[in-house]
Amino acid sequence: MALSKNSAKHIRSLAQKKFRQQHQQFVAEGDKIVRELLSTSAVKIVIVVCTSDWYTKNTELVAQRKAEVVEVTPTALNKISQLKTANQVLAVVVQWQSELNAATVSSDWSLYLERVQDPGNLGTILRIADWFGIPNVICSPDCADLFNSKVIQSSMGAFMRIAAPRLELAQLHQQFPDIPIYASSLSGTSIYEQKQLKPGILVMGNESRGITEEAQTLATAELKIPSYGKHDMESLNVAVATGILCAALRFK
Amino acid sequence: MALSKNSAKHIRSLAQKKFRQQHQQFVAEGDKIVRELLSTSAVKIVIVVCTSDWYTKNTELVAQRKAEVVEVTPTALNKISQLKTANQVLAVVVQWQSELNAATVSSDWSLYLERVQDPGNLGTILRIADWFGIPNVICSPDCADLFNSKVIQSSMGAFMRIAAPRLELAQLHQQFPDIPIYASSLSGTSIYEQKQLKPGILVMGNESRGITEEAQTLATAELKIPSYGKHDMESLNVAVATGILCAALRFK
Repeated sequence: MALSKNSAKHIRSLAQKKFRQQHQQFVAEGDKIVRELLSTSAVKIVIVVCTSDWYTKNTELVAQRKAEVVEVTPTALNKISQLKTANQVLAVVVQWQSELNAATVSSDWSLYLERVQDPGNLGTILRIADWFGIPNVICSPDCADLFNSKVIQSSMGAFMRIAAPRLELAQLHQQFPDIPIYASSLSGTSIYEQKQLKPGILVMGNESRGITEEAQTLATAELKIPSYGKHDMESLNVAVATGILCAALRFK
Repeated sequence: MALSKNSAKHIRSLAQKKFRQQHQQFVAEGDKIVRELLSTSAVKIVIVVCTSDWYTKNTELVAQRKAEVVEVTPTALNKISQLKTANQVLAVVVQWQSELNAATVSSDWSLYLERVQDPGNLGTILRIADWFGIPNVICSPDCADLFNSKVIQSSMGAFMRIAAPRLELAQLHQQFPDIPIYASSLSGTSIYEQKQLKPGILVMGNESRGITEEAQTLATAELKIPSYGKHDMESLNVAVATGILCAALRFK
């Protein structure tokens, strides 16, 4: 079966958030991620578009899932890919509603992201959460779209494993009034000096503007990563800061 | 003075490494970084291309440096910009040779990057080094180009402050035979359990292939960031891992 012009157009349109939301679908690209999606029974695959080479190696996996497959030339794949150079395969996948894992919010660390705009940062943070066993990465409604292809790529599969619901911080606090909120801020106490941290919600702010006043008001404490030696009042990338704080929460 | 066609073509050509190397120049974009470059007397500015708005606000700074300035419309700026949406200003700057800060290699922590390919990762790592006061980020010759515009953007000015010379690891070891080498590797000892770390060279590997066999052979010890709870044998992004390890080296 060849890829129809309409299908190609549809797949390309999913590069835009507007069309992803309208169709409730998204595109995942690359061998590793598509094989992982095919192996995850809860995920609904709309179509797999791949080179003959890839299909030969993965016929069984695809057959198991009864997924619709279209074999195309590398050139044709490049035309619908969002990558500079297409990988051997992409899949169109049905979006899912990420549900809050409420039991773990009460007992374990969660992350709350306030208007994190860069999809690469969002994906990298999901990957960090996965590594450090943090089950919930709750996003403010104005964070980057979870199904943006750069989130998918940079999360390395973590977007399938981490709950990433969208919720206002005030609502989250209303739902869990006894769970402490810690806000990451350059004006906070060093994470290495802060005593008595009991599991709670760690708020990470926007790439250039940091956390909101609301987060500061709701926070039990503000935490910072100290710099070392002289420094020019710069800050760390938000994903790097998240990684350092999560490592400190788990192992300090 | 208007921007000549030839100048516009020259600036656009600097998006490619080949032309950056041929002319030994690079492009920096954005208000903050250009103002920082203009304030750094050791940096040679070839030309500043900006909107009238920007020039009005920064006339004095530009005059001080006697830099050549061309005012253009936002549309004209967009045409020569490497960003999706151009900022108000870009500068063409003469490349410099990053020299090893030898005294600090002997007394403090250094980073060594092995074939780190993604310019965003390289820039983010320079920013991390800046934050944690690590003066040398030595790069293997096959790392991303230091003057790639994505390195410049993501380093947030740190590319001006950190020494990032290119050198083979074996050469570095020959030059500093008594300085311990630690290699970041998933098969290493947890950084939080490793005893008696004395300052040395921390080697970070390629995004997908990790460190080389050579690094493993030269290493005094291999270090890892432990994961927490179950995990699917994924890893962390190399810049995030660098951040976590540097924080641990400085504050654990």
